[in-house]
Amino acid sequence: MSLENFFNPRGIAVIGASERKGSVGYVIVEQLKKRFKGYVYPVNPKYNEILGLKCYPSIKNVPDPVDLAVIAVRAELVPQIMEEVGERGIKAVIIISGGFAEIGPEGEKRQEKVAEIAQKYGIRIIGPNCIGILDTRSGVDTFFLPEEKLRRPPQGSISIVSQSGALLSMWVDWMAMKGLGLAKAISYGNKMDVDDVDLIEYLAEDSDTKVILLYIEGLKPDRGQRFVEAIRKAVKNGKPVIVLKGGRTERGFKAAASHTAALASGYEIYRAVFKQSGAIEVDTMEEMFDAAKAFTMVKIPRGRRVLIVTNAGGEGVLATDYCDRLGLEVPVLPQDLVDELRREVPPHVVLSNPIDLTGDTDDERYRIVLEKVLSRGIVDIAIVIAPPHPPAITGKVVDYVAEASKKFDIPILAVVTGGFIAEEFIKKFEEKGIPAYQTPERATKVAAALVQFSEYIKKFSG
Amino acid sequence: MSLENFFNPRGIAVIGASERKGSVGYVIVEQLKKRFKGYVYPVNPKYNEILGLKCYPSIKNVPDPVDLAVIAVRAELVPQIMEEVGERGIKAVIIISGGFAEIGPEGEKRQEKVAEIAQKYGIRIIGPNCIGILDTRSGVDTFFLPEEKLRRPPQGSISIVSQSGALLSMWVDWMAMKGLGLAKAISYGNKMDVDDVDLIEYLAEDSDTKVILLYIEGLKPDRGQRFVEAIRKAVKNGKPVIVLKGGRTERGFKAAASHTAALASGYEIYRAVFKQSGAIEVDTMEEMFDAAKAFTMVKIPRGRRVLIVTNAGGEGVLATDYCDRLGLEVPVLPQDLVDELRREVPPHVVLSNPIDLTGDTDDERYRIVLEKVLSRGIVDIAIVIAPPHPPAITGKVVDYVAEASKKFDIPILAVVTGGFIAEEFIKKFEEKGIPAYQTPERATKVAAALVQFSEYIKKFSG
Repeated sequence: MSLENFFNPRGIAVIGASERKGSVGYVIVEQLKKRFKGYVYPVNPKYNEILGLKCYPSIKNVPDPVDLAVIAVRAELVPQIMEEVGERGIKAVIIISGGFAEIGPEGEKRQEKVAEIAQKYGIRIIGPNCIGILDTRSGVDTFFLPEEKLRRPPQGSISIVSQSGALLSMWVDWMAMKGLGLAKAISYGNKMDVDDVDLIEYLAEDSDTKVILLYIEGLKPDRGQRFVEAIRKAVKNGKPVIVLKGGRTERGFKAAASHTAALASGYEIYRAVFKQSGAIEVDTMEEMFDAAKAFTMVKIPRGRRVLIVTNAGGEGVLATDYCDRLGLEVPVLPQDLVDELRREVPPHVVLSNPIDLTGDTDDERYRIVLEKVLSRGIVDIAIVIAPPHPPAITGKVVDYVAEASKKFDIPILAVVTGGFIAEEFIKKFEEKGIPAYQTPERATKVAAALVQFSEYIKKFSG
Repeated sequence: MSLENFFNPRGIAVIGASERKGSVGYVIVEQLKKRFKGYVYPVNPKYNEILGLKCYPSIKNVPDPVDLAVIAVRAELVPQIMEEVGERGIKAVIIISGGFAEIGPEGEKRQEKVAEIAQKYGIRIIGPNCIGILDTRSGVDTFFLPEEKLRRPPQGSISIVSQSGALLSMWVDWMAMKGLGLAKAISYGNKMDVDDVDLIEYLAEDSDTKVILLYIEGLKPDRGQRFVEAIRKAVKNGKPVIVLKGGRTERGFKAAASHTAALASGYEIYRAVFKQSGAIEVDTMEEMFDAAKAFTMVKIPRGRRVLIVTNAGGEGVLATDYCDRLGLEVPVLPQDLVDELRREVPPHVVLSNPIDLTGDTDDERYRIVLEKVLSRGIVDIAIVIAPPHPPAITGKVVDYVAEASKKFDIPILAVVTGGFIAEEFIKKFEEKGIPAYQTPERATKVAAALVQFSEYIKKFSG
């Protein structure tokens, strides 16, 4: 069965809906009422109405259409509820409740019971012990924190699958602040049924999703091959899968084991799996979102040759260091190009790669060197370091960079280091479609991710 | 001669002062007039007055007291000016002007000429080809960008020495935005006289400076031993020296060579020198400022044993990974402590290290575990991951963390991931003296820097 019922149900029953402000069963109804495009059916025998919506005593009484049940009741009640859900003919369930495999033998038994019932009725389950789904288009939202605590990001094309619900909620809040657009965010908790593999497979075909982010501590032991295939499918569809692995060191692995009971596979195996499948592994959450932003904004470079343009020598040096370390080429400019450029810029401009326009540069110098170098087809991507501080910089550089990127069909990443004036420049760059970062290191890591993906694409799409 | 005349002159002559708004000679006078505590003497034969200050036709006419000359005229005029400065008895000069060794043979000759004159009169020089000094206490400010382009940070205890003037100005602007306090920022340009070594020696004794940041591309070839000694002196005085090296890879080194004519020493040698001297090397500018912030706020840990407390399992796992990789210990809690804690917290709280308070935690749980664990003396530093999202978190956790840190004399770093509500929490933590960061990776790197410094202190202070 497709997962479509989870993301685009015609109606949702919220079992354990509540009138108590701030409670899980309240916030879910509140959010769904606000944004979900289909029918919302609160279910709780205690109430006749919640937030102005008719409340049903049992799932049995809920009218059609209802494609998804969200269960947020005490763990002990869940098996009974599952029976009723099955009888009612609902095929998709999100179990928010904790108190299952994650708490030990008693919970494990309960989870097995739920699995049996699901099997009997052909029900797919996300959870238990999860925060479920946030879909910015359909409005499915089981993230049970009110907006004062957790802002919802704008619609966008980044989807996230996370083994940690808490991390996922923080990231969603973070994206909202940064203005990064979200398609779907999914926390699968104990993944007793739907897991990372199912979700990647679904997102690989999802037209709203262009970039897939994955936080993972451990795969189910029998899912390695399907995981590889799911990621390859995404890559073939032009969608990067960016992975942050938790539990990479021995001590970290032990911590993961008590967190999500991740199975004991060495990190080296995961690394091999990521590489084999075409996943882009990152080291930190910052890198993950830096790369995600770029993937939604620029085209994939054709190769690994980088042009660096700067007006700050030191930043050019640092960018070169990072490129070199990450295996990106910083090609030397051919002499005839240097000669050609020399006629256009003052003698103290350093015409090497990095090109250092120096502190007395104006916007125009950026335009000239980008035009001349990019037109040669000798680089695949450019990192343009454009702090706004030099007196003659007015801001036209932003347009020049955007125009050059478009004209020559070459992705450009901008670096703008500094205070408020730098933050403004970053915003301006991004309004023009150029991903911008505060430090050369961050931009260079993004460049490396873009290049890595271009190589995966070549490899897997023939 | 001490460098005191550069940082605390009684009077400053600005040679090449100008009435032209936004020009170098204008902005320097403007800034000095606003904040410098001594006398400001504009010098330029073209004007009688600049910004309401009497302008002198020549340095010869400038009255006492004048301890520092700032030269911002065309390079060709500098040798003649230097003669006049020498005759006037001034012993400290900042040469802002470019057009010296950095432009090739002609400039080199000019720089040699200046060196001869300086020698003859016993003048110390910062520069040429630099932005000079920003001292937030005395008000010396030769950073020739107006405040709209470059904000000045508040007074503080971080000093920066940078081989890149552009990087330095961006960092100063960045610090202003972040509210990080600056003591002194110095760009030495071509370092024809005063160099990194002199400046570190000076800052090692400077009572306003608690942390020294250093961006360096290359040392003068004969200064290795003095560099080691200067840093050791700082470390012995309890001041960390945090170094970011530009030109670390082969390609990056070539870029550095065209930027600052850094000499060809392999990076491995620099690494050894940093280690031998007690410098803390960082990989990125973000790490540099993250660590600097912590050093100004917390005490140095006694060892490398880290406690991690979280309410988000995934973040605890990631923090553990980073600790493990950076050589920090995450000790297992003794069983009797676990038993003691178990009586105080609900059964689903994970009483390992990391301690995972889980998503239903309130502020109180943080208080309990910090009190019980820190009182045992089994850890040297704590990383407290406290996202504000859990419904029962009100914000008291901030006070609890600050109180525990004080009571048990153990440095604590906070991690708060998320959007605006997280940023507010970060601010609250820092108001209470707890350095806070958006990601576990950043906090863990800071912890590693603190631990590294504690080991240097032990090593060099006996």
